[in-house]
Amino acid sequence: MRRSQTDSAKDKILRAALSRIRTNGYAATTVEDLCAAAGVTKGAFFHHFDSKEGLAVAAIDYWSEVTGALFAGAPYHKLADPLQRVLGYIDLRKALLTGELPEFTCLAGTMVQETYDSNPAIRDACARSIIGHAATIERDIRAAIAKHGIKPAWTAASLALYTQAVLQGAFILAKVTGSAKAAADAVDHLRRYVELLFNRAQQKESAR
Amino acid sequence: MRRSQTDSAKDKILRAALSRIRTNGYAATTVEDLCAAAGVTKGAFFHHFDSKEGLAVAAIDYWSEVTGALFAGAPYHKLADPLQRVLGYIDLRKALLTGELPEFTCLAGTMVQETYDSNPAIRDACARSIIGHAATIERDIRAAIAKHGIKPAWTAASLALYTQAVLQGAFILAKVTGSAKAAADAVDHLRRYVELLFNRAQQKESAR
Repeated sequence: MRRSQTDSAKDKILRAALSRIRTNGYAATTVEDLCAAAGVTKGAFFHHFDSKEGLAVAAIDYWSEVTGALFAGAPYHKLADPLQRVLGYIDLRKALLTGELPEFTCLAGTMVQETYDSNPAIRDACARSIIGHAATIERDIRAAIAKHGIKPAWTAASLALYTQAVLQGAFILAKVTGSAKAAADAVDHLRRYVELLFNRAQQKESAR
Repeated sequence: MRRSQTDSAKDKILRAALSRIRTNGYAATTVEDLCAAAGVTKGAFFHHFDSKEGLAVAAIDYWSEVTGALFAGAPYHKLADPLQRVLGYIDLRKALLTGELPEFTCLAGTMVQETYDSNPAIRDACARSIIGHAATIERDIRAAIAKHGIKPAWTAASLALYTQAVLQGAFILAKVTGSAKAAADAVDHLRRYVELLFNRAQQKESAR
């Protein structure tokens, strides 16, 4: 993520939210924590956000924007075969499983666990993030179905959402095991499934 | 879950924890909330548990016990073919996706999101629950590999953990969409994957 001396207080608070909430969850993260992590005053916080909830919604939208730009700019989009683009997306997801847990896990998937019942504004922002991202993969899956002439019993939309289920669950495995390895193994299973659905033998067995 | 007039205060608190934490997460659930939901005094709470953290660890172990008994007693274990037992397990997981979200989602998968970094005792209890449950499925997967004579590039342990990744991610999809439908679709994809791995055409296309 970009960091510059000219970043606004608002950007610093948003980035602190991404890090702190992915580490400790939403409820356990206080406005004071965020101000300390961002190096800003509470006055600055409440100048930019009307409440912790308002910050949370803005943080998820910021998250969607940052991750959306990352995936939109990824090289796999240049592949001619839409199936290869889907597999390229999955390979990128695996490649991103590096560093510490709060660096590769998902803000929206973490926050919705605590807020889906109590906070509709946060839940809806999480839904926009996860479902909106799935829609970008659905397009390539739909094109791959057409190009490869398969007649699936499943829909492109359901497979796109499934990729997100696997990734979210993979992050939980990483958290219980304390390691990205279990998450990477889950992504390998997802890749193998997509290849099997399109009647491809495993084209690349990932290193173990 | 059993409910009787003779349930101890401890049982009432544990059951309240299962419901309240699956609704609002760990950090947002206070000892006062739990006492109110269980209909017990704070004195009774601290008679049984030394802290909210102590209650949380006990609640996860209770959860492991209750869900462990549910799966151990399920009819699919009587099937002779271990592959059918694995598929029977997956079918049961789909059948359990009914009622309200806090009734079918996972206590351990929810809690680890908020506590993996800050609270090793809770994280370890979540790990025991999820990894311990996966081990019960791993046995049938290993037997299915032997019986069906396949030579997989994957391990029984990794496929067993993958089933848990899919289920945990399916719960997150249910939370963002507000419906069990997206979770059920994910479980359908998991079933199809297992069938494909064992070179079986889809034996039962689930109703949509």
